[in-house]
Amino acid sequence: MATDAQQACFEAGIKFGSLYHQFAGTPVSPSSARSLEAAMAEAIENQPHCEAVDVTVHDDRVADAIDHENGYTELTGSLMDVRMRIAYEGVTVRTRMEMEDGYPLMKLVEVVDGGRSGSGDADTSLDADSSPGADPNA
Amino acid sequence: MATDAQQACFEAGIKFGSLYHQFAGTPVSPSSARSLEAAMAEAIENQPHCEAVDVTVHDDRVADAIDHENGYTELTGSLMDVRMRIAYEGVTVRTRMEMEDGYPLMKLVEVVDGGRSGSGDADTSLDADSSPGADPNA
Amino acid sequence: MATDAQQACFEAGIKFGSLYHQFAGTPVSPSSARSLEAAMAEAIENQPHCEAVDVTVHDDRVADAIDHENGYTELTGSLMDVRMRIAYEGVTVRTRMEMEDGYPLMKLVEVVDGGRSGSGDADTSLDADSSPGADPNA
Amino acid sequence: MATDAQQACFEAGIKFGSLYHQFAGTPVSPSSARSLEAAMAEAIENQPHCEAVDVTVHDDRVADAIDHENGYTELTGSLMDVRMRIAYEGVTVRTRMEMEDGYPLMKLVEVVDGGRSGSGDADTSLDADSSPGADPNA
Repeated sequence: MATDAQQACFEAGIKFGSLYHQFAGTPVSPSSARSLEAAMAEAIENQPHCEAVDVTVHDDRVADAIDHENGYTELTGSLMDVRMRIAYEGVTVRTRMEMEDGYPLMKLVEVVDGGRSGSGDADTSLDADSSPGADPNA
Repeated sequence: MATDAQQACFEAGIKFGSLYHQFAGTPVSPSSARSLEAAMAEAIENQPHCEAVDVTVHDDRVADAIDHENGYTELTGSLMDVRMRIAYEGVTVRTRMEMEDGYPLMKLVEVVDGGRSGSGDADTSLDADSSPGADPNA
Repeated sequence: MATDAQQACFEAGIKFGSLYHQFAGTPVSPSSARSLEAAMAEAIENQPHCEAVDVTVHDDRVADAIDHENGYTELTGSLMDVRMRIAYEGVTVRTRMEMEDGYPLMKLVEVVDGGRSGSGDADTSLDADSSPGADPNA
Repeated sequence: MATDAQQACFEAGIKFGSLYHQFAGTPVSPSSARSLEAAMAEAIENQPHCEAVDVTVHDDRVADAIDHENGYTELTGSLMDVRMRIAYEGVTVRTRMEMEDGYPLMKLVEVVDGGRSGSGDADTSLDADSSPGADPNA
């Protein structure tokens, strides 16, 4: 049997892959970014064991990515930050997607099994900043 | 050369195929249906020549489609109605997706080329009902 | 009523939007490009009135787009050319997606209604080059 | 820090969510199922730490799901079985998606860290049957 913590991490990965590949390619502009953020978060929060999803589409990156007259671009990982909190059988997993070396990286930030933390201070502090909408830090 | 009306119909089809295949499969529940409706409409309205998109996800159909304990289902054409208004070089095209014989059908409702209508009264009346959000009838 | 030619162009647009937004974002590398080309073409050929789809993923562009150590990139319109032939009630529509001014443009190449061509020589010649797999020129 | 086994399970989940939400909704028929199986497997095998993916689209289920004259349906989890093998820092994770109580369930089959197995015989035997294409059992 996999441990509850391993299962929780598997569930967390499913949510991330789902969010990314369901919505990557969506036409986006600064004016439509807010509704897309909300829909992405609420859609994935429907999935089992998913307690909170926070998506931030960076308008400045979207504006920079608009390279033709049509005034929109397609959603990619480089345009957004995503944070999630998954809970499975008493294990809480926090994940983030953010740019690292110019490449959007999905990563485990913290695995907390019944109070025993699986993260370091640095990672924890990553999640200390305030966020709009659902709060994966709660 | 294709005519402006033919080009307008081609553009209308692109929007429909884009909306359907970008968002089909999205986890949806009655509680997340509103944000998904908004995101779908605003995303596709970014595309060229797309003047208005109206998406209605039917909560009753979503609820009926939730067949397991997880409390959500995946978006399919059978759960929503979509209406769009495309404008290209003076030609206005109205389209709808709705269930017909149990199958979601994308169809041209009206093609209006500089005042000359390409639709019948029946089709036009289909679009006379009020709709929330963007109004493809405007 | 829309004309058969307009309906054929609408159907052609649906196929293009479907292909693009179903498969955009798919992880792709030179070694997986062939299976993706085949799957994209055969999937869309399932759709009504779609007679032939030809997809060419350009390995050199894929290789150029691989900008991190993982050795793959995500499919976008800039990495492929697509040609389709749609037939509806005696009207044949040929479409292409190709890069124009650095932006992938979906366009109507030819609309042939019962022998009356809706295209010019230039556009027709665009489709004269040989292509692997399904032949939208046939 | 998350453990290597937890990280491996997170990576495994990402692959599963990616595969499902990238390809769900793809038009499929018995005649296009083979190319879709190959493309799905090869696309996800591009992702980091993904050693093998095996996708089986069940033609009989596809045929049963074709409920209209068009002769195709849209890919959903109920039409396919998926098996994957992920390797991360010496940890091997085997996963499956298969129907359970009429619902497609993504699950961890085995987590092997070094030589210490995290699965029981029953789960292991699930993966003993032969499979076409990439072999997640290798």
